[in-house]
Amino acid sequence: MARTSGQAPAANGIVTLLTDFGSADAFAGIMKGMMLRVNPRARLVDLTHEIPPHDIVAGALVLRSATPYFPRATVHLAVVDPGVGSTRRAVAIATDTATFVGPDNGLLIPALRQSRIRTARAIDIAHLQKRKLLGAAISQTFHGRDVFAPVAAWLSKGGALSALGPAANDLVELRLPVSRVTDDALDGEVIYVDRFGNLVTNVTAEDLTRFRRRTVSVSIAGMRIGGLVSSYASVADGELLAIIGSWDLLEIAAHGANAAQRLAAGRGTSVRIAAE
Amino acid sequence: MARTSGQAPAANGIVTLLTDFGSADAFAGIMKGMMLRVNPRARLVDLTHEIPPHDIVAGALVLRSATPYFPRATVHLAVVDPGVGSTRRAVAIATDTATFVGPDNGLLIPALRQSRIRTARAIDIAHLQKRKLLGAAISQTFHGRDVFAPVAAWLSKGGALSALGPAANDLVELRLPVSRVTDDALDGEVIYVDRFGNLVTNVTAEDLTRFRRRTVSVSIAGMRIGGLVSSYASVADGELLAIIGSWDLLEIAAHGANAAQRLAAGRGTSVRIAAE
Amino acid sequence: MARTSGQAPAANGIVTLLTDFGSADAFAGIMKGMMLRVNPRARLVDLTHEIPPHDIVAGALVLRSATPYFPRATVHLAVVDPGVGSTRRAVAIATDTATFVGPDNGLLIPALRQSRIRTARAIDIAHLQKRKLLGAAISQTFHGRDVFAPVAAWLSKGGALSALGPAANDLVELRLPVSRVTDDALDGEVIYVDRFGNLVTNVTAEDLTRFRRRTVSVSIAGMRIGGLVSSYASVADGELLAIIGSWDLLEIAAHGANAAQRLAAGRGTSVRIAAE
Repeated sequence: MARTSGQAPAANGIVTLLTDFGSADAFAGIMKGMMLRVNPRARLVDLTHEIPPHDIVAGALVLRSATPYFPRATVHLAVVDPGVGSTRRAVAIATDTATFVGPDNGLLIPALRQSRIRTARAIDIAHLQKRKLLGAAISQTFHGRDVFAPVAAWLSKGGALSALGPAANDLVELRLPVSRVTDDALDGEVIYVDRFGNLVTNVTAEDLTRFRRRTVSVSIAGMRIGGLVSSYASVADGELLAIIGSWDLLEIAAHGANAAQRLAAGRGTSVRIAAE
Repeated sequence: MARTSGQAPAANGIVTLLTDFGSADAFAGIMKGMMLRVNPRARLVDLTHEIPPHDIVAGALVLRSATPYFPRATVHLAVVDPGVGSTRRAVAIATDTATFVGPDNGLLIPALRQSRIRTARAIDIAHLQKRKLLGAAISQTFHGRDVFAPVAAWLSKGGALSALGPAANDLVELRLPVSRVTDDALDGEVIYVDRFGNLVTNVTAEDLTRFRRRTVSVSIAGMRIGGLVSSYASVADGELLAIIGSWDLLEIAAHGANAAQRLAAGRGTSVRIAAE
Repeated sequence: MARTSGQAPAANGIVTLLTDFGSADAFAGIMKGMMLRVNPRARLVDLTHEIPPHDIVAGALVLRSATPYFPRATVHLAVVDPGVGSTRRAVAIATDTATFVGPDNGLLIPALRQSRIRTARAIDIAHLQKRKLLGAAISQTFHGRDVFAPVAAWLSKGGALSALGPAANDLVELRLPVSRVTDDALDGEVIYVDRFGNLVTNVTAEDLTRFRRRTVSVSIAGMRIGGLVSSYASVADGELLAIIGSWDLLEIAAHGANAAQRLAAGRGTSVRIAAE
């Protein structure tokens, strides 16, 4: 198999962690212990461990929301892994700007898209198989500890992707609901609800530009909200609003209040943008 | 405008974080990414991200409880910011012992009081406006990422307050309920309920000294508790007690149990200390 | 009193934290502040702060599950401390592989057992009493801040156990339910429920080896599950399974689902392994 050096950016020593392990058990702590054994100088930064159990879509969206803000050459370790112990592959992927480690189940895809996979060269995706770089024993239940943590720590020291295992040429895709633009309306749905009850939809700022109407109204859960505003504080306390949020996606929010509760809305709730 | 150097303590590289962002989304992680881009050597310490959404009073009390225990010259970054996108100011404040960064909405006030603002010189409060020190684009919804994180990281490298924007002379106050001492009684109320269900009141150790009664009884939610004890273990398992807690405030607790649940009490519940 | 040097492993600067303080209050943050004052170079790693309040058994099990994965000479600070302010002792303990700091209430015992106490020499357990190494004032309510954090930080700098106070010869035991092996069956019970609803039992891999039956069935909460499988993915989505989990203990799980909810089972629920 031909290999190239890949010219990954030099590692900066930072490893971020995103999992569905929660913070009540010590699963995340155990991964940190494993990483510090491999790279005692690693700088470990939690993104979150509160992805709903086994929810690959939520994990993928949160990962994408955070990774662009980290320094170049950060290693992002993500584990939402309902298929642990099955034949799903474990992968590490280098891009122009960052390195990703996790299961090959779609979890890494949106962050990779945003990050732009470095080249088309197959060497940039490694199927993790080199036993000597992994934990002493590989369980069937906790690859976060036995596979992903040691690999992430090793990459954070500047280890080469090509040493981790054979190159892979493809990745399992993530199926996300897509928005539809017609002449009359732009239809989307809620894909994530954040801590504040803000309803994040799959309607992008770009979709709205393509829709090109001077004034629009937004409808969700039987309510019609006015047009888009530019800040939560643009409406009175407690009122609903539509805004392009910090993920560059259309959000339905309520000023100082919880829009998800107010509208009894959640993931999958439809949203429609229509011309006024 | 006259500026002085301010002689802020040299930064020690530590930045603490307190927010109402929760730990399910990656908001806190995103702020950390931004900080590590500005100061790759910053040492980031979470105080909490679980302040109830938009609850400035709870955020202010928890911040005050923690900041005195950090090394001199620590930067404390606090974001509980319902007014993001409005005209509320963003500020950085240097004191004798520490530096604070956050919205000018009262959140920082109790911690500042405790920390003693360094001087009366206006230079010690900066209204954050210098665009080149902030994020590339400033959203209307997430100043934690776009304003406060880059500023805190920059200050943690030893950056000067005076470079951040014009000096400010005043801060928005925080309204906290005050206790009342009369001849017969000392009246206060619960201002915070902690994880253990301990009811923290606004009655200070100093209030009790001023009240000057040899023996007192404490009443709350229709229950009369004996006098003050010096440890949770001073009463039998499950029994209620009154104690000066770790915040130097009167707490109503239950030994090994949850006083808030037992008394169906919470924030705003009255407490009365009377002479025996 | 005779003292020996104890030849503790040189400290590596890492301190792990495990408490029942939750993450809503700043208790854990305050401990970190205290530690950074004593050792500004300490590397602080959270195991968890979500041990159920006052639950020494859960704290002990989670601590044991995590400590073996950390580098040699790590300091493990654990505080689940319902007896704070009583006569319970505060201790620091050195083993061949790690150092432990916490209350002498059984919390540290399973981790110590796993770690093998270094020698029988009494010097390896110190009863924390040297005031000059502790916080300025010692409260009756928060020894995490006033006793354990300063001691852990001091040990993480390489401080000697023998300087902390008089040697102790014994530790308070932890009572854990024990499994019973008979000719016909192996009886145990659920001792922990993790974030995913996996039911961790007190049946060890070693128990199963001793039971020595070619094929077994596992019964819990009126349900009979087949034999042991080697991965969650060995059964269909949603199905129950029995597996030796990442703690090397028998777990009852459900593939991609929550076994505790499915079985209405929890701590104390009996489990029986019988020959087929």
